[in-house]
Amino acid sequence: MSACLCLVFLFFSIVAEATYSPGGFHHLSSLRLKKKVSKSKHELPFETRYFPQNLDHFSFTPDSYKVFHQKYLINNRFWRKGGPIFVYTGNEGDIDWFASNTGFMLDIAPKFRALLVFIEHRFYGESTPFGKKSHKSAETLGYLNSQQALADYAILIRSLKQNLSSEASPVVVFGGSYGGMLAAWFRLKYPHITIGALASSAPILHFDNIVPLTSFYDAISQDFKDASINCFKVIKRSWEELEAVSTMKNGLQELSKKFRTCKGLHSQYSARDWLSGAFVYTAMVNYPTAANFMAPLPGYPVEQMCKIIDGFPRGSSNLDRAFAAASLYYNYSGSEKCFEMEQQTDDHGLDGWQYQACTEMVMPMSCSNQSMLPPYENDSEAFQEQCMTRYGVKPRPHWITTEFGGMRIETVLKRFGSNIIFSNGMQDPWSRGG
Amino acid sequence: MSACLCLVFLFFSIVAEATYSPGGFHHLSSLRLKKKVSKSKHELPFETRYFPQNLDHFSFTPDSYKVFHQKYLINNRFWRKGGPIFVYTGNEGDIDWFASNTGFMLDIAPKFRALLVFIEHRFYGESTPFGKKSHKSAETLGYLNSQQALADYAILIRSLKQNLSSEASPVVVFGGSYGGMLAAWFRLKYPHITIGALASSAPILHFDNIVPLTSFYDAISQDFKDASINCFKVIKRSWEELEAVSTMKNGLQELSKKFRTCKGLHSQYSARDWLSGAFVYTAMVNYPTAANFMAPLPGYPVEQMCKIIDGFPRGSSNLDRAFAAASLYYNYSGSEKCFEMEQQTDDHGLDGWQYQACTEMVMPMSCSNQSMLPPYENDSEAFQEQCMTRYGVKPRPHWITTEFGGMRIETVLKRFGSNIIFSNGMQDPWSRGG
Repeated sequence: MSACLCLVFLFFSIVAEATYSPGGFHHLSSLRLKKKVSKSKHELPFETRYFPQNLDHFSFTPDSYKVFHQKYLINNRFWRKGGPIFVYTGNEGDIDWFASNTGFMLDIAPKFRALLVFIEHRFYGESTPFGKKSHKSAETLGYLNSQQALADYAILIRSLKQNLSSEASPVVVFGGSYGGMLAAWFRLKYPHITIGALASSAPILHFDNIVPLTSFYDAISQDFKDASINCFKVIKRSWEELEAVSTMKNGLQELSKKFRTCKGLHSQYSARDWLSGAFVYTAMVNYPTAANFMAPLPGYPVEQMCKIIDGFPRGSSNLDRAFAAASLYYNYSGSEKCFEMEQQTDDHGLDGWQYQACTEMVMPMSCSNQSMLPPYENDSEAFQEQCMTRYGVKPRPHWITTEFGGMRIETVLKRFGSNIIFSNGMQDPWSRGG
Repeated sequence: MSACLCLVFLFFSIVAEATYSPGGFHHLSSLRLKKKVSKSKHELPFETRYFPQNLDHFSFTPDSYKVFHQKYLINNRFWRKGGPIFVYTGNEGDIDWFASNTGFMLDIAPKFRALLVFIEHRFYGESTPFGKKSHKSAETLGYLNSQQALADYAILIRSLKQNLSSEASPVVVFGGSYGGMLAAWFRLKYPHITIGALASSAPILHFDNIVPLTSFYDAISQDFKDASINCFKVIKRSWEELEAVSTMKNGLQELSKKFRTCKGLHSQYSARDWLSGAFVYTAMVNYPTAANFMAPLPGYPVEQMCKIIDGFPRGSSNLDRAFAAASLYYNYSGSEKCFEMEQQTDDHGLDGWQYQACTEMVMPMSCSNQSMLPPYENDSEAFQEQCMTRYGVKPRPHWITTEFGGMRIETVLKRFGSNIIFSNGMQDPWSRGG
């Protein structure tokens, strides 16, 4: 089970901005799946190394020369000198997670006699330039961004090839989700270092209104509609019932009981996020492509959810049905006695991702009335205010498309780029922006 | 005359590291041609505008949000909406100089009905983020570099197109020397913003030992050899004589007289740099291609110099001959009464360029015994020390090739890049690295 939940976590973080959070950031953290993430560190067939990096590659201020140690994992069991190097461009989390959940690269390494390298993204896992203080302030977090990360990868790969005396080895980069965006961008920006990229579920068009803001949730709604129209309707109607229960006298208490929470609920939104999260993440793991690297939930979980919903007797409450379906996701093994919905601690780099979402990774979304999920409007102003309050930063919403492109991307890639595979299952909610 | 001297200045700055400076930086400034640079500002057919830019595009620290105003020049006389936009990617100096000396773009604008835009490079001209304090310390200068400049250009171009409601207009970038490198790199890094680049005399291979360190001076020596073997030999032998004169009793006084300096000389190296500079810059303007944008010295000045040298009676001193040839370059109009060889002020951005040479633009060179010019070895350690003393920075000599490539560039460009013209006359000393 741990594999797919890691995947879920991986995807979760990228929808941070997209979750239902009318009141702001605090709702985001309620969807944490911490308990279920298993690192399986001891099983990883990799050697752990550390590489010295400059804090800032794009300035030469005295601070820029500060050195931190970037973690990376290496496996040379299958490699023969001169053979290819497969690099996973780490994303928002401990690199061990990605390595333990990217069996695809291990699977193909023997055939290509490839060296495997997994590089941890700066400011995540152990690769924290300011140690425990890395996430403390805008001064330190300021160096957390995608371009610095790509430059880290370029420098590390170049040094590694030199040390291996294998400078002619072709390098292929792999990545999923944000890591997939990084892989694609790395091929675009560093074609002299990598000959190709496999970018899985990499929604590089989810910026700056390139795709409709509703794309992501529209795709999820469609996945459930495809499984069962009734299922779609039940979920869509469940939000009203949740609202009705929670606003009754002792409503939150009632809701806590209904949802078997471990502690009393402080807000109906926690329950709403928890519930909607189940549908969102289930859609994301329902039809992963091979390139997602990770094992899906067994079977076709969207269909399984809908079977549960459709199997209730006539007249059953929509909310009860929706909860039962969500339990399939949160309690697939049946061993959970209660559910944590308002967990607040963060040691999975989510805070880092939220910072990135507040600076460069501005992926505005909205959820329409036609969607199965609670509708909400994108509110850029409120978002800006939250970012300023929480991190003291102002988002730069046009930066990613200026730096990496995105508008009319097909024309640009036809004329310029090559060897980038964007892999998505068509039912992957990210597919419309990938 | 002013046009070609601007060109000389332009090129001068890029050879900063390459000039003969065994004693360090202070010799560099002796080659200043300040008096002769004419801005012709009032004649420029451009409107001057200013664009707000963030200080740092690649970090989100509080400092990064500081806004400065970047100067740019615009001419829409020939443009029709939807037509192309020709952008000069400004290099190390006041943008007015480049605009007044890049007639090529003005020449072709009517034919293409193109909009012309000349963008000033940050930290030069009026585009100084910290005003007069911009060059004061490593803290402020730290934001002066090529990647920040390219990002400035990307943001400005995108905003301009949006304001003009002409987002489908193709953008072509132009540049010479360092500006040529920027143009080429801009096409490589921002293919979604520009469809092509004309990079003139852009020695993007003069980094990290890609071309032999002696390439530049070898090319100059070859140009003079091609004009006259005797001329080559005379210049080659003149350095010994200069050394002999200057180390005699009252030698510097004697040398001042011989070289008609405006003030007494403090060092023989000033005279040597002045003399060798004449040959270096003359070679550079001897056969400019059309794409150099700038008018050459009239005729073929290398040949003219050699005619002067060869025309002296038998037995004349080599130093006298070399001086006479150099006078052609420094005093083409014949109006100079004396020569300034130890001028120290800098208001041409040279200081900025030297800083760039100490951080990212590390272009090591050496001059072999076979060269016509005084031989010298590349001394990376001494160079590092000078950079630390002067600017408090440590060079990053591998950074440019990591960020922009350069190794096996033909293979990379064949697979990836397109629409980049590298134009050099074959006798351009930069051609071996261009």
